[in-house]
Amino acid sequence: MNHEDGLSRRQQKAMQTRLNLLHAGKVIFLKEGFQKATMTEINKQANTGYGTAYVYFKNKDELFGELMENIVEKMYEVASLPFEPKTSEEAFEQIKTQVRLFIQAALDEQEMMKVLKEAIGVSEIVEGKWSQIRTRFIAGIIKDITFVQEAGMANKEIEASLIARGWYYMNEQVMWDILLGEVAEDLNRVAENLALLYTRGLYVGNK
Amino acid sequence: MNHEDGLSRRQQKAMQTRLNLLHAGKVIFLKEGFQKATMTEINKQANTGYGTAYVYFKNKDELFGELMENIVEKMYEVASLPFEPKTSEEAFEQIKTQVRLFIQAALDEQEMMKVLKEAIGVSEIVEGKWSQIRTRFIAGIIKDITFVQEAGMANKEIEASLIARGWYYMNEQVMWDILLGEVAEDLNRVAENLALLYTRGLYVGNK
Repeated sequence: MNHEDGLSRRQQKAMQTRLNLLHAGKVIFLKEGFQKATMTEINKQANTGYGTAYVYFKNKDELFGELMENIVEKMYEVASLPFEPKTSEEAFEQIKTQVRLFIQAALDEQEMMKVLKEAIGVSEIVEGKWSQIRTRFIAGIIKDITFVQEAGMANKEIEASLIARGWYYMNEQVMWDILLGEVAEDLNRVAENLALLYTRGLYVGNK
Repeated sequence: MNHEDGLSRRQQKAMQTRLNLLHAGKVIFLKEGFQKATMTEINKQANTGYGTAYVYFKNKDELFGELMENIVEKMYEVASLPFEPKTSEEAFEQIKTQVRLFIQAALDEQEMMKVLKEAIGVSEIVEGKWSQIRTRFIAGIIKDITFVQEAGMANKEIEASLIARGWYYMNEQVMWDILLGEVAEDLNRVAENLALLYTRGLYVGNK
């Protein structure tokens, strides 16, 4: 049985070529940055035939768009951790941990994140993709806020969709600042401060 | 007296040319966006001699950098409003008003702000300038937080520089979202929600 996984040899080869191109893309983007990287270089790095990259990806923006999914995967995992606190103290501790892990996950991919920052500015495709990723993060936060509002722990006057957006942006931008070396604060201290403002702001009966 | 304001005729003429070029720059940036605009077009629009723009500005990035000061001027005025509240209720009302006016000032310059957003992404000079402007805004917020902390109204555990940064980013990003049509909420409602989270989070004895 050659096709035990349901893919023909040709399909398997195509998948392998695709992965090679993505891997080569990562190497080239890290080396050149987003703007300077070219499909020709990526092709060469992947040892695929001339023009092969264009069979798999419309342009470098699309190729980078696929790489983004991997870059933010761990950040997204952190954001998707189960969140069902019983008290506002518990919520504070969980949120503090989430902020720290979210920024840490970005720092673990520091070099690719820098390329991402550059790409968001210059590529509409990458910007659009980033905007989708943000929407996913914000949707997760809305879910968490709704949970604590329904549990009677959080202020119901507050509109979850607006606060989720504001809270996400606070985290994202501080993450960029730390990543680009503009904020030298200790990660624990950053997480503590942001989580404190947020939980005190959102939760009822805060100390 | 030809020199009553202390400027020679030549200096006055140079200043006028400079203003003409800035005005022409605005027209061209609004028409073409940042990336497509060229110094040649700006020169032509200003009716100055070939290459004159380069006498006054190193490149379009520098010229745009000067225009930015005007674009954000009103936003900055709002951020610099005196802030010496006596109670946390008063602080909430003032902050709510500030958020609303800050976003409104950006909306009043909507088209140039869109060009600015584009320019931040692609020009290191503009990005650097924007980063300076942000620092000014954040410094103003630090001052306000320190005032209420010293007055015993705000939580002293909180580190003003971190919270100021987070709060500024929340406002800036929500402003971009509204400006780019990604958030359709009523401005009062946005201001109310953000100010509520922030003042409840920051102030002691919040309701």
